Amino acid sequence: MWSAKVFTLYPEFFPGLLDLGIYKRARTKKIWNLEVVNIRNFAIDKHGSVDDKPFGGGKGMLMRADVVNNCLAENKNNNSTVYLSPKGKQLTQEMVKNFSEANGLNILCGHFEGIDQRVIDANKIEEISIGDYILSGGEPAAVVLLDSILRLLPGVLGDEGSLEEESFNNNLLEYPQYTQPREWEGKKVPDVLLSGNHAEIKRWRLEQSRGITQRQRPDMWQKYNKNKN
Amino acid sequence: MWSAKVFTLYPEFFPGLLDLGIYKRARTKKIWNLEVVNIRNFAIDKHGSVDDKPFGGGKGMLMRADVVNNCLAENKNNNSTVYLSPKGKQLTQEMVKNFSEANGLNILCGHFEGIDQRVIDANKIEEISIGDYILSGGEPAAVVLLDSILRLLPGVLGDEGSLEEESFNNNLLEYPQYTQPREWEGKKVPDVLLSGNHAEIKRWRLEQSRGITQRQRPDMWQKYNKNKN
Repeated sequence: MWSAKVFTLYPEFFPGLLDLGIYKRARTKKIWNLEVVNIRNFAIDKHGSVDDKPFGGGKGMLMRADVVNNCLAENKNNNSTVYLSPKGKQLTQEMVKNFSEANGLNILCGHFEGIDQRVIDANKIEEISIGDYILSGGEPAAVVLLDSILRLLPGVLGDEGSLEEESFNNNLLEYPQYTQPREWEGKKVPDVLLSGNHAEIKRWRLEQSRGITQRQRPDMWQKYNKNKN
Repeated sequence: MWSAKVFTLYPEFFPGLLDLGIYKRARTKKIWNLEVVNIRNFAIDKHGSVDDKPFGGGKGMLMRADVVNNCLAENKNNNSTVYLSPKGKQLTQEMVKNFSEANGLNILCGHFEGIDQRVIDANKIEEISIGDYILSGGEPAAVVLLDSILRLLPGVLGDEGSLEEESFNNNLLEYPQYTQPREWEGKKVPDVLLSGNHAEIKRWRLEQSRGITQRQRPDMWQKYNKNKN
């Protein structure tokens, strides 16, 4: 069973979106489980203080090293711990795959200005960023990270989804897809997709993937061409 | 008032994480509002069918163009509409800022294999990706996108957060931060931050930002150096 443990100031927001059909079923089938730890239970005083002002000036509040460390120490397991932060390493599908092949993952969610750096460094916690934008806290990022991992666990996706031929294999984005009706408001599904000619379909899809990648993601296009040669 | 409209098969998961303290308060103060539209209400039959198999082969199910289009057409407004998909343009903090300065945003959430491309093209919907990984659907991405936008709306962040000196200004990641206690398990806050010398603190923070960016994000480091010269 793959074990997720989330450390957060907002435990009430979990499982939230992860209580979705496929993930709920997978939890019932014990494919994964979720433990949510309330960092506020490790506050330094009875007022529930968990943060303070940053040294050296600057607005906002930082989560305290002692509070976060006590919380992590009392909830230790053998899985690795990541901290979701915009200054982390960029999350990729390859990293997601590696997380899904481990026994589980601990996810530390910061809030507002973040967490005192000493507790991140002392615990050798990997900092991971889900993208180049700023959130109010790590919670939405934790849901994204868990969603990306959970769908790769064996037995989670049934006929509803698919792991084949997806974006990011070989640095190409996915080709456009079409379903019923064959004609919609005068717009037809591309003929080739109705041809039954699998080689032609494969060629067309590759061409589409190449075009979309070149247009949307010059960075991936460069990698694709480098790997091809 | 900034207006968010979310089109989804899972309306029950909203506002979810967006019902957090600051965002709840901001909704009460009418800084923003949220309308959630259930795509299933526009199903083609009484069984609630909204999807079908992709033409040309491949696993999974695609959301139908007619269903999605009827849903969009009956819920039109003057705001632009984005579709969250891994083959979209990468979301950046600059795009987030632009969205926050508009009157609102409509967000279309796909599920499983995605949406028939014709409805995306016909409605000139911008495809946006929150990162290079695959999710089971657009819902967690919508929460991330809304979080990133909402915190920028005037009046949303109080003393709890801050918009100053954040990651992604000038292509540099944020410096490490420290708070009370001054010494924790033998680890001291860097002396310079306690010095009161603002010029020195600024210089130290810039040095740290440069180091972290160079180490974590060679791509941003390259842009930073290009813009500097």
